[in-house]
Amino acid sequence: MAKFYSVGVGAGDGSYITLGALRALEKADIIAVPVKKSGEKSTALEIIRKEFDTDKKEILELEFPMSSDDKTRQLSRGAAAEKIISALDNGKNIAMITLGDVSVYSTCSYVHKAVKDAGHEMEIIPGITSFCAAADKAQISLCEGNESVAIIPSLKSANLEKYIDDFDTIVIMKAGKDTDAIYNILKRHGLEHNAVVSSCIGMENELIEPIQRHKEYGYFTTVIVKH
Amino acid sequence: MAKFYSVGVGAGDGSYITLGALRALEKADIIAVPVKKSGEKSTALEIIRKEFDTDKKEILELEFPMSSDDKTRQLSRGAAAEKIISALDNGKNIAMITLGDVSVYSTCSYVHKAVKDAGHEMEIIPGITSFCAAADKAQISLCEGNESVAIIPSLKSANLEKYIDDFDTIVIMKAGKDTDAIYNILKRHGLEHNAVVSSCIGMENELIEPIQRHKEYGYFTTVIVKH
Repeated sequence: MAKFYSVGVGAGDGSYITLGALRALEKADIIAVPVKKSGEKSTALEIIRKEFDTDKKEILELEFPMSSDDKTRQLSRGAAAEKIISALDNGKNIAMITLGDVSVYSTCSYVHKAVKDAGHEMEIIPGITSFCAAADKAQISLCEGNESVAIIPSLKSANLEKYIDDFDTIVIMKAGKDTDAIYNILKRHGLEHNAVVSSCIGMENELIEPIQRHKEYGYFTTVIVKH
Repeated sequence: MAKFYSVGVGAGDGSYITLGALRALEKADIIAVPVKKSGEKSTALEIIRKEFDTDKKEILELEFPMSSDDKTRQLSRGAAAEKIISALDNGKNIAMITLGDVSVYSTCSYVHKAVKDAGHEMEIIPGITSFCAAADKAQISLCEGNESVAIIPSLKSANLEKYIDDFDTIVIMKAGKDTDAIYNILKRHGLEHNAVVSSCIGMENELIEPIQRHKEYGYFTTVIVKH
């Protein structure tokens, strides 16, 4: 019976790929690749190509447009699930690749549920999250002993104010457009020197630097506040 | 010049080892292995032996006794750092292995600082955290879209009460002895059916089950509360 592998490929560096991910890719007939738009490049596919020859595999694009419209998102998820289930029904093993870890801010849940509801076997292969990769590159410990960590998406960066006293570490994901706002909140707490911005970890344009005013970053940006 | 690699080997399954971890092990002359007591087995060493032949490597035990006494802890950390720095001074590459990810509840910070202070080059290799492995095995998403996650150590499980309304997901690490207390807090919030206990993920005695009353688990136990 065909099997569905939902594979975390880690942050931007091919060296973050696990042995389990490689084995799932080997078993797969089809590698399913989420893209924003058909024909556009996939960072996850670029990562696995650093370490795995995809030439003998069929590449199946799944379009997930960046949209805040619920209807558009539902339609694209439905279409992706349908493509995958149809291939599984035809006896093909599929590995769907995702940046980072599948359980952390990926959009895979809908597809997972659909695959399970259709009665197919599924395995999720963990990946290195961007915040672990960032902390390790910056040589910061996220937590030790009795410490706690909050992981919040940038959209909720206002909550930074709320959590700052309770948590030893706050990780703000997808923070590229909000570093200025985050800087200002931190400054009010005297913590503007306690935050590191990491962007595109493991990629060519990787950047790790102290947070600063009036700067914007791209999509793959994480801020780690540690005090 | 000799280099120090601090290597996360992931949770209990050898398949969680990354390509980067394997390469660091290959480059190492010495594999440094934290143990509770000299001669005792090391889970991290058992994991890498599933996928890597350690026969040609020197194994260096670092004793980190489980102790709440600050002085004992300081002494063992100091002794570990000294052994490592001495080997690096002698031109040996060292890979120190740690379960999960190095930045998440490991006790490596002291050694990292000492190695850097001694002027040696250091690289941290990220690993799969137990909570990602647990979520993926249980097929739960830790966070999606606008959701937030709190990661707390069991010692602070009283904070569960405090965070339960604010966070979509709460991960309680090292929760083996506290699942009963956690169950009772969850029950007060009508959330006793929203928590999964995972223990020894990827190991022979792996266990994933709904939280329940009057049960204790071992050291490698994580509770994920999701609502």
